[in-house]
Amino acid sequence: MTQVKRVYSFGGKTAEGKADMKNLLGGKGANLAEMCLLGLPVPAGFTITTETCNDYYADGCKLPADLLTQVWDAMKKVESDMGMKYDDTENPLLLSCRSGARSSMPGMMDTVLNIGLSSKTIPGLLKKTNNPRFVYDSYRRLIMMYADVVMEKAEGVELPGDGIRKQLDNMLDLFKKSKGYQTDTDMTADDLKQLSENFKKKVQEVLGKAFPDDAKEQLIGGIMAVFKSWNGKKAVSYRRIEGIPDAWGTAVNVQSMVFGNMGDSSATGVAFTRNPATGDNIFYGEWLVNAQGEDVVAGIRTPNPLNDDTKNEQNKHLHSMQEAIPTTYKELDAIRATLEKNYKDMLDIEFTIQDNKLYMLQCRVGKRTGTAALNMAMDMLKEGIINEETVVMRVDPAQLDELLHPIIDPASEAKVEPIVKGLPAGPGASVGRVVFTSEDAVAWERKGEKVILVREETNPEDVEGMRAAQGILTARGGMTSHAALVARGWGKSCIVGAGALHVDVVGKIAKVTGTNIVIKEGDILTLNGTKGHAYNVALELMDATENPRFQAFMTIVDKHRKMGVRTNADTPADAKIARDFGAEGIGLFRTEHMFYGEGSEQALFLLRKMILSNTLEERVAALNDLSVFVKKDMKATMLAMDTCPVTFRLLDPPLHEFVPQSAEKQAELAKALGISAEAIAKRGEALHESNPMMGHRGVRLGVTYPEVSEMQVRAIFESAAELLKEGHHPKPEIMVPVTCDVSELEFTKKIVDRVYTEVLAKFGIKEIHYLYGTMIEIPRACLLADRMAKTAQFFSFGTNDLTQMTFGFSRDDIGGFMNHYLDNRLLAADPFQTIDQDGVGQLIQFGVERGRATRSDLKVGICGEQGGDPASVDFCYRSGLNYVSCSPFRVPIARLSAAQSTIRHSKKK
Amino acid sequence: MTQVKRVYSFGGKTAEGKADMKNLLGGKGANLAEMCLLGLPVPAGFTITTETCNDYYADGCKLPADLLTQVWDAMKKVESDMGMKYDDTENPLLLSCRSGARSSMPGMMDTVLNIGLSSKTIPGLLKKTNNPRFVYDSYRRLIMMYADVVMEKAEGVELPGDGIRKQLDNMLDLFKKSKGYQTDTDMTADDLKQLSENFKKKVQEVLGKAFPDDAKEQLIGGIMAVFKSWNGKKAVSYRRIEGIPDAWGTAVNVQSMVFGNMGDSSATGVAFTRNPATGDNIFYGEWLVNAQGEDVVAGIRTPNPLNDDTKNEQNKHLHSMQEAIPTTYKELDAIRATLEKNYKDMLDIEFTIQDNKLYMLQCRVGKRTGTAALNMAMDMLKEGIINEETVVMRVDPAQLDELLHPIIDPASEAKVEPIVKGLPAGPGASVGRVVFTSEDAVAWERKGEKVILVREETNPEDVEGMRAAQGILTARGGMTSHAALVARGWGKSCIVGAGALHVDVVGKIAKVTGTNIVIKEGDILTLNGTKGHAYNVALELMDATENPRFQAFMTIVDKHRKMGVRTNADTPADAKIARDFGAEGIGLFRTEHMFYGEGSEQALFLLRKMILSNTLEERVAALNDLSVFVKKDMKATMLAMDTCPVTFRLLDPPLHEFVPQSAEKQAELAKALGISAEAIAKRGEALHESNPMMGHRGVRLGVTYPEVSEMQVRAIFESAAELLKEGHHPKPEIMVPVTCDVSELEFTKKIVDRVYTEVLAKFGIKEIHYLYGTMIEIPRACLLADRMAKTAQFFSFGTNDLTQMTFGFSRDDIGGFMNHYLDNRLLAADPFQTIDQDGVGQLIQFGVERGRATRSDLKVGICGEQGGDPASVDFCYRSGLNYVSCSPFRVPIARLSAAQSTIRHSKKK
Repeated sequence: MTQVKRVYSFGGKTAEGKADMKNLLGGKGANLAEMCLLGLPVPAGFTITTETCNDYYADGCKLPADLLTQVWDAMKKVESDMGMKYDDTENPLLLSCRSGARSSMPGMMDTVLNIGLSSKTIPGLLKKTNNPRFVYDSYRRLIMMYADVVMEKAEGVELPGDGIRKQLDNMLDLFKKSKGYQTDTDMTADDLKQLSENFKKKVQEVLGKAFPDDAKEQLIGGIMAVFKSWNGKKAVSYRRIEGIPDAWGTAVNVQSMVFGNMGDSSATGVAFTRNPATGDNIFYGEWLVNAQGEDVVAGIRTPNPLNDDTKNEQNKHLHSMQEAIPTTYKELDAIRATLEKNYKDMLDIEFTIQDNKLYMLQCRVGKRTGTAALNMAMDMLKEGIINEETVVMRVDPAQLDELLHPIIDPASEAKVEPIVKGLPAGPGASVGRVVFTSEDAVAWERKGEKVILVREETNPEDVEGMRAAQGILTARGGMTSHAALVARGWGKSCIVGAGALHVDVVGKIAKVTGTNIVIKEGDILTLNGTKGHAYNVALELMDATENPRFQAFMTIVDKHRKMGVRTNADTPADAKIARDFGAEGIGLFRTEHMFYGEGSEQALFLLRKMILSNTLEERVAALNDLSVFVKKDMKATMLAMDTCPVTFRLLDPPLHEFVPQSAEKQAELAKALGISAEAIAKRGEALHESNPMMGHRGVRLGVTYPEVSEMQVRAIFESAAELLKEGHHPKPEIMVPVTCDVSELEFTKKIVDRVYTEVLAKFGIKEIHYLYGTMIEIPRACLLADRMAKTAQFFSFGTNDLTQMTFGFSRDDIGGFMNHYLDNRLLAADPFQTIDQDGVGQLIQFGVERGRATRSDLKVGICGEQGGDPASVDFCYRSGLNYVSCSPFRVPIARLSAAQSTIRHSKKK
Repeated sequence: MTQVKRVYSFGGKTAEGKADMKNLLGGKGANLAEMCLLGLPVPAGFTITTETCNDYYADGCKLPADLLTQVWDAMKKVESDMGMKYDDTENPLLLSCRSGARSSMPGMMDTVLNIGLSSKTIPGLLKKTNNPRFVYDSYRRLIMMYADVVMEKAEGVELPGDGIRKQLDNMLDLFKKSKGYQTDTDMTADDLKQLSENFKKKVQEVLGKAFPDDAKEQLIGGIMAVFKSWNGKKAVSYRRIEGIPDAWGTAVNVQSMVFGNMGDSSATGVAFTRNPATGDNIFYGEWLVNAQGEDVVAGIRTPNPLNDDTKNEQNKHLHSMQEAIPTTYKELDAIRATLEKNYKDMLDIEFTIQDNKLYMLQCRVGKRTGTAALNMAMDMLKEGIINEETVVMRVDPAQLDELLHPIIDPASEAKVEPIVKGLPAGPGASVGRVVFTSEDAVAWERKGEKVILVREETNPEDVEGMRAAQGILTARGGMTSHAALVARGWGKSCIVGAGALHVDVVGKIAKVTGTNIVIKEGDILTLNGTKGHAYNVALELMDATENPRFQAFMTIVDKHRKMGVRTNADTPADAKIARDFGAEGIGLFRTEHMFYGEGSEQALFLLRKMILSNTLEERVAALNDLSVFVKKDMKATMLAMDTCPVTFRLLDPPLHEFVPQSAEKQAELAKALGISAEAIAKRGEALHESNPMMGHRGVRLGVTYPEVSEMQVRAIFESAAELLKEGHHPKPEIMVPVTCDVSELEFTKKIVDRVYTEVLAKFGIKEIHYLYGTMIEIPRACLLADRMAKTAQFFSFGTNDLTQMTFGFSRDDIGGFMNHYLDNRLLAADPFQTIDQDGVGQLIQFGVERGRATRSDLKVGICGEQGGDPASVDFCYRSGLNYVSCSPFRVPIARLSAAQSTIRHSKKK
């Protein structure tokens, strides 16, 4: 049997892995290897594969038998590269043990640092460094981390009260208090030595076993703990939000420790090779002298700027790295160039300087705002780094949404003063009510509230609350803090490091230093994430102004797009907006729209008159009056979309929706119609249904009241005829909703044919270019699509209803259980947000295949709300649809998604 | 090109067709040919094929070009056989022109008699017969029929007032009145000649064209009219009820006329080779001297008995054929034997005697009651005529229903006197409100009323009303009248020839001669169709007493059955009934049943307490109390079904159903629970759903309230454990409803596994034989059946919900449009009555195939209400289901259907 290679070494400008081995080595491991291959200074180490993680779980959480041999073999290389030995009495090597999944899950899994310190190795390290304070500080940190991550969490120990970490933290605080110390740095080497001993006793007492005093045992524990943390609560929750499969697993990176906290000649930093918020081609980062990497990311101290380009209001008084250690800065800047050239993308890097020596600890493709993504892509195209296909792939469709996101109306913003300022960590604006915990954010959002999450600082536990919030405001942290990274990734407006803010999470209150401003739970806040300003009023939001680079980008997108994009629009105004956004027609015009909302009174009155008619004659008379209104909107919409197809869906909702419910309104209507209120109440009752979603609606109305279909069809043809006469090019498409059998289409087609002939005669024209088709939204219509296509010239999948019927989920009623389904991972995603490709997808594919088997040129589209969801668009592309149709504001997203699908799937061929 | 053979001759003891050519020649044509081949006296003629009918419609209602050549060729054979010539001046042949579909559609299509009479042929016929009265009577009948059937109906002429037939009838009446005649027979030859001339003028005047005086034109018109009548309103309506495909078409039988009305040596009759009501092996029929066949069927005159065996209270005073013309009777009786030997079945025959010569005009397999079908089949098995498979196939499953139909409780019937007596035309009893028209019957039935249709006599226009009625009572007609035939075919109780009844259809009233009894619309009537007695009170009905031949029959049925039959039962009592009816287990036990109806108060109270609990603890406490009730029914049901599987469905309906609606009931409950009425109202409101059918129900309740599933699962296992301890053999099956994803099954399985282990431990037993499975009632579950079967050991198709979701039809709401769909033939049948094999059927087949692909021994059944519908049972058999489950009273029907499927499909192999 060939041995499975589980361990990949890196270090000393060589490596067994490389950047494209992410699936096996995780992103971190692959990139560490790549940096070695690029000759960059990386502390030596090795990566244990993601497959090993899966094997670990498959075997009931046991490390594979062949793993450790490979680990100790790899260790020899590390020792040789670093010139130190693990578990050595003279020159001991210390290690870090970190997770690394295929795709970055910042802060979601566990890390153990300083592994290898024991009674055996400490004397040698003391001797070698001659820095007992550093040694014992490292030791007490190891104990704290190890006890928490390995001994408690990974073992699944459930302590009755506080966790071990918290208990040790309390001990630390008490110790400092007893000594009258203010900060950690006041503690002496002896203090820390003493504390370490106390910690070990506490660990034994609380967890019932000793902190391992064996370097090998420590490392094995660390590896297992990283594997365990793949299924930790935070990681699982993050994967669910991000749609990361559970089966990917995490790699483990075991790497030699280097220390940024060994004094003033040591430092640590985080940087982006370009500005991740704007996309500007400047080196952008933060650093801290005498600190460990965690200190920057955690946002505990406001870090120094990397260089002049990174200076801002909050940090301009601090020394930049460029100023403080120009030689090392230059070395770093050269690495920046090497990395961009190699990766052809903007990178997010972490480095440490130990005793003036620069080490690269991490590099990965950097998260960015939508604006930055678009600007960088266009720049890199210009710089000749990437081609057009790559430009298209570089912008996440969801990020376009952010580009089109609202900003605060400048006029209204000019009139008010911000109550607090911070770093502009996530651009765009948001308005909502203040909550102070992640749990509240989730709970309020589920109740339908828009919320702003206000925190002292955010940590990985806050992920779900951040997701639920419109915007995030934190008192601490820099542009690379957790809150900033996560918010930008999701395109949420976010302000961090608003230092004047003092948050009392227990009291659910925040105060602004130097003012008498108090922010209470439920108060309104408006955030300007682009400026970093927060206001305690609800300001007017408006659409982002047009970005010319956006237009240029979309031109490239369309060059690479094959599938059409239409819009769902019911008014000439919406049609206009959608056309400006690039819609190539209307995929869904809901005729009932004209009976809802402002300005609909008269049309609604006539519709009600029709519904309350007792005889066919009365009904036809009311319909004739109504026709005028119907025609007006239809004609103006076709004009706004001239030369492009407009799909008119015949009346869809149950008539019951239009009969007033309250006695008062019924009386009012009765008076207007000259009939009794009882008659109205009675009709309303007769029309009442147990399950209106599956009741008397759509084509079923047309079957029982063919005159209603006839009126609409006539309005469509007459509008088109008038436009033709006026020199325009209308392209109406008549769509019959809620069909389950071709007989319904044949029934309606007879009306269409007759009215068509009549309208041609009336207007003396020869032809109106039109199509006749159906909405496919009932499972049976998909199953019998071969028959449906005998009469229908086009299909448009109504994925909202199709999802309802396929799952048996009433969209209005899923509130009672959908959260349970998502929380318990019974469903991967809400199928009303993104097409359920497994189930509903099968029906769509039946529809396409069987429909085209009957009619090879059948036009097929989708007009459900998922039409603007990138994953759904990709599914539609793969299923061979001719177009997707979505709401006007999602048209650019659909265009980009469609182009990406074309590129993605043509690559595969 | 080979010529299509469109015309098949018969006559002179030879024929081109035969009995098994029904599809091509229609039933009538095939049997006429067969009788010729058997050497029976059949007037010569020819049959035009059903394919020609289809060609006629396909070509826009034009006779195929090659048809007439074949007709005139065939005519030569007819002329030679009959020794007469069509359209001849000396010895003219007269013809009838009748429809003949594959399956009998009595009275639904049109007929023209006496074709060939014209100014050219009349003189010759006068000379030959020397009977001018006969000739002119035949002529005026031809004009009346032809004008009606060919010139008005077939041409689609819509007259403003009365049809031509009615107008000619009025002329006849006026003519008789003007002459002071009482009956038709008072009219002289000259009268009839005069009348014929008047008729022709009227036809020209009303229809704008002349009655054709050309024999050839008359025949062509007759043929086309028969084709046309295939799509006449009556025929279409009948086909819809009987499920006869439109594409079958009708044949046309052109046959030499023979006359039963040529004087007292002529006669006509209708007979059954055995008694169609009881199955007794006696020759059973009626005849009329000097009459045409229509006179018997129309029920205008009460006919004479054929023989002693046919005598009854109404006709015992009339001469039987056996008495009147014993030689001819013997000849007919011999024909009876020949026919039964040939067809191996009971036949319905029509004959005519012209001048003492017997002619056979028709034979076909006779309609019969369920009792007769069963008795005849068992007799013929004993007689060695048929084998067991044929016995099984001989009883229509729907007829079993009739056998199990209620009869009047003899005790209550003994206490009352019938208000009127008639012929026992359709056995069994019925109770309902009186209506006097077919339209009213349909309308009242749609409102949910049970109705008895009371008519002077019924005609084919009444078919829909008869279908809608519980029972039928007519004043006129014999056992072979239209009403009697149709009612028996449908197994409806029916009394005909209740001569004392005088029906005023306009006044909607009926009087009983010699009494002061008046029956008004809406009055209650009880019919005893087995005795022929009607009562004007609602009598108690009861189940038919056990028929030992029924048991013997069902034993044969089960010998030939392969698919299992279970029942849907929720109580020990129902389980007992079903087991007596032969159920082999319970396919659906609805746990919620125990919260409905009488005796459920305490359980319902506890359920409500559970629903209104605010905390998990309160809910669990209420569930513990509830568990006692749940277990009691479960245990008793398993005991009643001991050794047979019992499928328990976990709670299915939305909780909202159990919260009282009225303020009063809410207040009552609030008091009992010690909480506020507002809390109840609020909870009720919170549970309210827009579309509860697709809402928070089934497994979704189990996901949000796992403790509810747990209680039920524990009750199932504990009941089984107790029974095991008591020495019984329980076989519980746990069925999870409304699933759409295997994750729901896995979620619930964890509870099942845990509780199973706990119960085994509690009772100290090693094993409970149980299965875990799911109801498949959501389209997605069918599509993903391969995954579902990973966890489910069995599937049970819930075709009610599956039909709802697949069609998007809410069963509670189809009232508003289903009738339109059926009336307009948009759907062939109500899919809630019989499985929609085209659409829903595909999903079922996916479910079976994909499920078994994962788990080859997956047990698959159906527990929707269609489980007792024969067509659905056949579909289930073909789809490879292991069992069907239906309501207790339909178990025998399902058993028979399943056996027939086995025989039918093994024959095909």
